Amino acid sequence: MRMLDIIESKKLGRKLTDEEIQFFVDGVVSGEIPDYQTSALLMAIYFNGMTDSEQTQLTMDMMRSGDHLDLSSIDGTKVDKHSTGGVGDKTSIPLAALVAALDIPVPMISGRGLGHTGGTLDKLEAIPGYQVEISEADFKKQVQNQRLAIIGATGNIAPADKKIYALRDVTATVDSIPLIASSIMSKKIASGTDALVIDVKTGAGAFMKTLDDSRALAKALVKIGQGVGMDCMALISDMNQPLGDAIGNALEIKESIDLLKGNGPADLLDLVLTLGSHMVVLAGKADSLEEARTKLEGTITDGSALEKFREMVVAQGGDGSVVDHPEIMPQAKYQIELPAKQSGVVAEIEADEIGIASMLLGGGRQKADDKLDYAVGIVLHKKIGDSVSEGDSLMTIYSDTEDIEAIKDRIYQNIKISDSATASTLIKEIIK
Amino acid sequence: MRMLDIIESKKLGRKLTDEEIQFFVDGVVSGEIPDYQTSALLMAIYFNGMTDSEQTQLTMDMMRSGDHLDLSSIDGTKVDKHSTGGVGDKTSIPLAALVAALDIPVPMISGRGLGHTGGTLDKLEAIPGYQVEISEADFKKQVQNQRLAIIGATGNIAPADKKIYALRDVTATVDSIPLIASSIMSKKIASGTDALVIDVKTGAGAFMKTLDDSRALAKALVKIGQGVGMDCMALISDMNQPLGDAIGNALEIKESIDLLKGNGPADLLDLVLTLGSHMVVLAGKADSLEEARTKLEGTITDGSALEKFREMVVAQGGDGSVVDHPEIMPQAKYQIELPAKQSGVVAEIEADEIGIASMLLGGGRQKADDKLDYAVGIVLHKKIGDSVSEGDSLMTIYSDTEDIEAIKDRIYQNIKISDSATASTLIKEIIK
Repeated sequence: MRMLDIIESKKLGRKLTDEEIQFFVDGVVSGEIPDYQTSALLMAIYFNGMTDSEQTQLTMDMMRSGDHLDLSSIDGTKVDKHSTGGVGDKTSIPLAALVAALDIPVPMISGRGLGHTGGTLDKLEAIPGYQVEISEADFKKQVQNQRLAIIGATGNIAPADKKIYALRDVTATVDSIPLIASSIMSKKIASGTDALVIDVKTGAGAFMKTLDDSRALAKALVKIGQGVGMDCMALISDMNQPLGDAIGNALEIKESIDLLKGNGPADLLDLVLTLGSHMVVLAGKADSLEEARTKLEGTITDGSALEKFREMVVAQGGDGSVVDHPEIMPQAKYQIELPAKQSGVVAEIEADEIGIASMLLGGGRQKADDKLDYAVGIVLHKKIGDSVSEGDSLMTIYSDTEDIEAIKDRIYQNIKISDSATASTLIKEIIK
Repeated sequence: MRMLDIIESKKLGRKLTDEEIQFFVDGVVSGEIPDYQTSALLMAIYFNGMTDSEQTQLTMDMMRSGDHLDLSSIDGTKVDKHSTGGVGDKTSIPLAALVAALDIPVPMISGRGLGHTGGTLDKLEAIPGYQVEISEADFKKQVQNQRLAIIGATGNIAPADKKIYALRDVTATVDSIPLIASSIMSKKIASGTDALVIDVKTGAGAFMKTLDDSRALAKALVKIGQGVGMDCMALISDMNQPLGDAIGNALEIKESIDLLKGNGPADLLDLVLTLGSHMVVLAGKADSLEEARTKLEGTITDGSALEKFREMVVAQGGDGSVVDHPEIMPQAKYQIELPAKQSGVVAEIEADEIGIASMLLGGGRQKADDKLDYAVGIVLHKKIGDSVSEGDSLMTIYSDTEDIEAIKDRIYQNIKISDSATASTLIKEIIK
């Protein structure tokens, strides 16, 4: 078998055989296939796509290229959630606590952020003492006992995907649905979960800008998951404006805690309850989505979800008093209000630009080794569809410097106030 | 400027700017652009093509990446010919002599063969003493005095093309018309000719299998040539069966000499006279193609073309007596006839398979450093459309071993004898 023939075959739009895909993945890991051949194949895949069975094969081969967590010793149906990422998306944090409070094991292996705002791990590290690097044995013990853990990748997960992703990033082949889908699913399958709920973001602040692309990705992800016997569903949710009100690491932890106390912003709560309901049903702890939602709402009302979150923080070495005193997290020196320049209705809040503003304040990374400032960020007071009078504060900017005129300008340019506007539906489609 | 953005742009089907193409070519030559980015761009070009102006820019930038021959000191309009290559294609050798016999300077920079049979340089090296490596100064002097020279590339011609071609070869991006056309033309423009006649082969034995593809390539080549002010035309000629009767290095030199003596095979003679007529008109030595053809025929009748060929051989260090005694070239030990297994009309002689048979006899290279056997090859006695009786010799195989059963089988499998058949037209189209 020759890599040249595999490239030629995909270039001509043919379906690769299982053996060809395996040869490719093995060759990438061993280094026998040079990067210039890999990138040529990636570009051919960008143009000619992959069938469902090719995507499943690629996913499984990338998964098998590294370690595979065995969570079978943990009681119950393990349920995880994955999001394609967006601005203000702290969903995983309260969601894990709500679901685990219903005695469902939630083994979350999460990532850091690059560009825009921090990732889930970055946010959790705003809590003094919180450890995201935990041994596999401790991870399993915690999920068994506390029913939830949110950690970074342990061991050598899908090294083929790591190499391929690094090449995609520098060869303009990131935005290929089969490549995105197999990358995500290889890691999720390796993480050993039984069931998975996927949140595919759509809109200006998301990786997938159009509903069509988002739907195609969601379908590909679900097909791959089901193809390997994982209980899997996806929903498509809006990412034109930021999710919730807070953007920034400590600020998003505080908003998560507020939600667990019953004071979360409506859009974030709706998304958490919708994703959570599917997780509860997949875990077999409710017969219907309605029943699941009612149970989840109960974990907020009776305080068990907040308690579950505190348990996780403590189990991972963090200061559990954060749930009562969020102010123990780093605090920004300055809180600067951004007044509306005119009256009207908020019509646009460009999610990625708000994310960039938070990054520029120090809350996100521009390069992989940038240090984060956990304290800084933005809290929105108005969202799309809200009325506003001239001079009202649109948002509070949390900054460690007063010199933020350029950031303010950038934000003003990306917020539109009109005569009338309505926010787009948060949850657009369910894909099973 | 970033290579990543250039790849992205072409991937999305946009036209690259002159600056982007220049940045790419410069980066390839300097090594600053890694191969994996180059191959991703090449694959994107395969899928999305290039406009005429992009192709011209790429050609000129690749040309300027290396040395450029200045032939302005040579009197007259310099005319060259290029062929995309086929089996039995010794056209350049008699053609150069005919045209030069009319006092037209023919500065031919030619190549070696890889796969199938040898290239023009390999064939000429079958003549004892013939030197293809000549200094630039001697090359110019010879074209000025003898009016013709056929040599290998001098100096550092189009190094960008060399690097890009090597990558195309291993990333399945050879068969892209903009890449083929810019590769050919960058070298031809660097060689300093004023006018160029291009022979694009089409059919089973050619690189371009369909007439549509051949036409597209011919048009691209002519467009680029004209875009840089070169007098340029192309014809599309048949390469389903081998051209002429002889395949093999010394055998093809002998056939060339036979043609110069008035005994050439009809198809080869027709192609030589057609290409030659266009060269004579481009050089301003005839007003019409008919007049040019008559003049060229005269150079055969009066022996001046044969004399011109002898002059070139002698000027390049070869033994001029070859024109009277072709047997001074290496001779094969065995001449083995291949009898027809049935009576009928020859319907197919698969050109590339006959080429491979000659290569297997030792007449072509499988790897770049293989040594050639100049003596071996094949002389066809029947071509498509010829009647044959069972037992008639279809061809003579010139071999240095008697053990050629496998080669014979291969040839039999690729020659079809039917009830009736007609050869396809040799010259299919003229592209100006």
